[in-house]
Amino acid sequence: MERTLSIDCKKKKGERVLVKGWMDQLRRLGKINFLVLRDRGGYIQVVVEDQKELDKVKQLQIGTVLYIEAQVQEAKQTDLGVELVNPEISVVSSVEHVPPVEYNKDDINASLPTILDYRPLTIRNKKIQGVFKVQATILKAFRESLRSQDFIEFRNPVLIGSASESGADVFEVKYFDRKAYLCQSPQLYKQIMIGGFERAFCITPVFRAEKHHTNRHLTELTHMDGEIAFVEDYHNVLKVCEKVARDVISAVEKENSAELKLWNVSVPKLPKGQIPEITIKEALEIIEKKTGKTSKRKLDLEPEDEREICEWAQKEHGSDLLWVTHFYKDKNFYTWNDPNDPETSLSYDLLCRGIEWLSGTVRIEKYEKLVANMKKQGLSEKDYDGYLQAFKYGMPPEAGFSFGLERMTMKIFNFKNIREATLFPRDVERLAP
Amino acid sequence: MERTLSIDCKKKKGERVLVKGWMDQLRRLGKINFLVLRDRGGYIQVVVEDQKELDKVKQLQIGTVLYIEAQVQEAKQTDLGVELVNPEISVVSSVEHVPPVEYNKDDINASLPTILDYRPLTIRNKKIQGVFKVQATILKAFRESLRSQDFIEFRNPVLIGSASESGADVFEVKYFDRKAYLCQSPQLYKQIMIGGFERAFCITPVFRAEKHHTNRHLTELTHMDGEIAFVEDYHNVLKVCEKVARDVISAVEKENSAELKLWNVSVPKLPKGQIPEITIKEALEIIEKKTGKTSKRKLDLEPEDEREICEWAQKEHGSDLLWVTHFYKDKNFYTWNDPNDPETSLSYDLLCRGIEWLSGTVRIEKYEKLVANMKKQGLSEKDYDGYLQAFKYGMPPEAGFSFGLERMTMKIFNFKNIREATLFPRDVERLAP
Repeated sequence: MERTLSIDCKKKKGERVLVKGWMDQLRRLGKINFLVLRDRGGYIQVVVEDQKELDKVKQLQIGTVLYIEAQVQEAKQTDLGVELVNPEISVVSSVEHVPPVEYNKDDINASLPTILDYRPLTIRNKKIQGVFKVQATILKAFRESLRSQDFIEFRNPVLIGSASESGADVFEVKYFDRKAYLCQSPQLYKQIMIGGFERAFCITPVFRAEKHHTNRHLTELTHMDGEIAFVEDYHNVLKVCEKVARDVISAVEKENSAELKLWNVSVPKLPKGQIPEITIKEALEIIEKKTGKTSKRKLDLEPEDEREICEWAQKEHGSDLLWVTHFYKDKNFYTWNDPNDPETSLSYDLLCRGIEWLSGTVRIEKYEKLVANMKKQGLSEKDYDGYLQAFKYGMPPEAGFSFGLERMTMKIFNFKNIREATLFPRDVERLAP
Repeated sequence: MERTLSIDCKKKKGERVLVKGWMDQLRRLGKINFLVLRDRGGYIQVVVEDQKELDKVKQLQIGTVLYIEAQVQEAKQTDLGVELVNPEISVVSSVEHVPPVEYNKDDINASLPTILDYRPLTIRNKKIQGVFKVQATILKAFRESLRSQDFIEFRNPVLIGSASESGADVFEVKYFDRKAYLCQSPQLYKQIMIGGFERAFCITPVFRAEKHHTNRHLTELTHMDGEIAFVEDYHNVLKVCEKVARDVISAVEKENSAELKLWNVSVPKLPKGQIPEITIKEALEIIEKKTGKTSKRKLDLEPEDEREICEWAQKEHGSDLLWVTHFYKDKNFYTWNDPNDPETSLSYDLLCRGIEWLSGTVRIEKYEKLVANMKKQGLSEKDYDGYLQAFKYGMPPEAGFSFGLERMTMKIFNFKNIREATLFPRDVERLAP
């Protein structure tokens, strides 16, 4: 008999079906037992009354893989509107031990480190699955949004030949007789790409050898990066990014309403018009007025500042998203300072619910200026040979942006820790599973 | 004035437009000059007659970024059917030197290493762009095909805690006070995933510290991996993979006909029915009959065997694709041997035009069997703690597969070297750009 998914049983009332899945619950009420089977379609209740079948299941552990032939019967009190009766049960993969976490409860009663240690089991939990279903939607919607805006997807390399290309806090790789490094950002490659394609994006792991253990940092992250040529006004990049944010949020709202409901959260609220935009100087003034506090970092936001200014945007503009622009002049060699205020750079962050979803800058496209900046910073032109080629032989005004997949996921669910939004997080302590 | 892409000029005959792009050609015929501008939409010819404008352009190098206001005029002899006349030209980014490769010719007259050294310029070539446009289509079609088959996308980690998890030829990373390794395959993670989701896929860089320099190996590659639960017969996996291959080929045929035409190639030919399937034993017999040669590797194919057997499939079955199954019993701990022929394993390769596009196996889902196999091979259970969890607490029969993105691209274009199908290839010698 061909397999029927739990979700499709309602189309087969009265028929006998074959379902396959994991035993997720077993409620024993004496002569009658209710077994709940989990498959990728959801959960279905199986009523077990026959003594022979009862004997088969009564000792089984949660997680046992079962194939069950049974009859579909209307059951209005269940989620699916149907249940299975008169089953013939086959044990396909038995489980010998009680699972170390009760992943089959609505909420797993365990600390985050335990949930991560038992990731192979905790991804069997319905709510946790919801997080990563949303994450898959973000990935898909990001790509579709950029493709609809004429961007081409490309594969950037993760192995990099020179450390300086990757900046500080870079991981070193033993590469045959020499050293390689893990990319901290695909930026130089996407800049190269647009000399050919004008608009390019990539989704890539990036690596940061940062020792500090915070709730928003990991050593391996997924970045969703884009780069765009022929940008004379940075507002044009903001528009592209804003469309991405809107497309992602609207896809999650449409395709993951069940998952959002499970967590009792709603997607970030967008204003009817454009996402509000303020400069860092304006932001710091607002924060000072609101809290009396002045930022310790020059023309930059600390985590608590990000929360304050997002609260302000929520209140004043009814928006969970906010552009903050013109941060302190960039220390990297590739970002333009603002000609009208050389203390600041042509840079922009998109904040959402108190955290940075995206950051980006307008890049220097002039070869001579890039080379001069490199010299000033003691960087070797030779290390950037390929990169500089792209500019030496003609590059239009251009800009780029980078969304953090885990941060986006985190803020949709209002998680406090980025690890909740990461399947297999890596940090100073954690390299497994 | 708002920008018009070259490709859209034909809708604006008689109007003045603003085009932006790179100077790709300049044909000087005395008083009249033909300038070809490249943008992401294609190429458009600009007729330059006015002396002032002539003076501006006559010294310009290929690659110079120009903004041109001009009038659209019918020109039946051109590809677009229109050209631009009476231009006003602005030089936006000037180029001081003659580009070191003539990327603006139909074919770049340079060796492959040179083409790779100058990748930032050679991706400005129309034919080379075509390769990576096709690659982007493959990525998109792969994901769409698996999503349509109910697979969920996930992000696997690249940093791995134990070397053995990654096998031989693994790259070592300095990870704070200890060592980490770069993943050779996301396999263990996708196996973990299906305990929750049944069907999962990921697209990821994988790393091989292989010293040999061949035309089909790189140290960093893109794998497109899937894993599927509730597979009792491996033919069901083959069906899933076959749909992926068909969907990818048909997407490339539809969306990239211009690129295929440029290279004068056609997509791999598929049979009307299923892709032919033979065992390795049958394959070796056919090769021996055909060439008199016996394979040096036990129940495995050497590169020339792959070419021979693909020629046979072409001739006998009219198919550029061929399944070869049941390779010599697997040395890894996680693959089932064939119960009917324990000398062979439940393994399958999808060959295309003489090279492996995909390989996969049916996995051992029994916890005790996995642990026994690990012991036999001297592997530490502790290193596989997370992985084993998934099996200890209930895993159905399952199988997986891995497509190579660069190999697929390579064989669509009939390239001899995988580097031609890779934007920024990494090998023993090459780590740049």
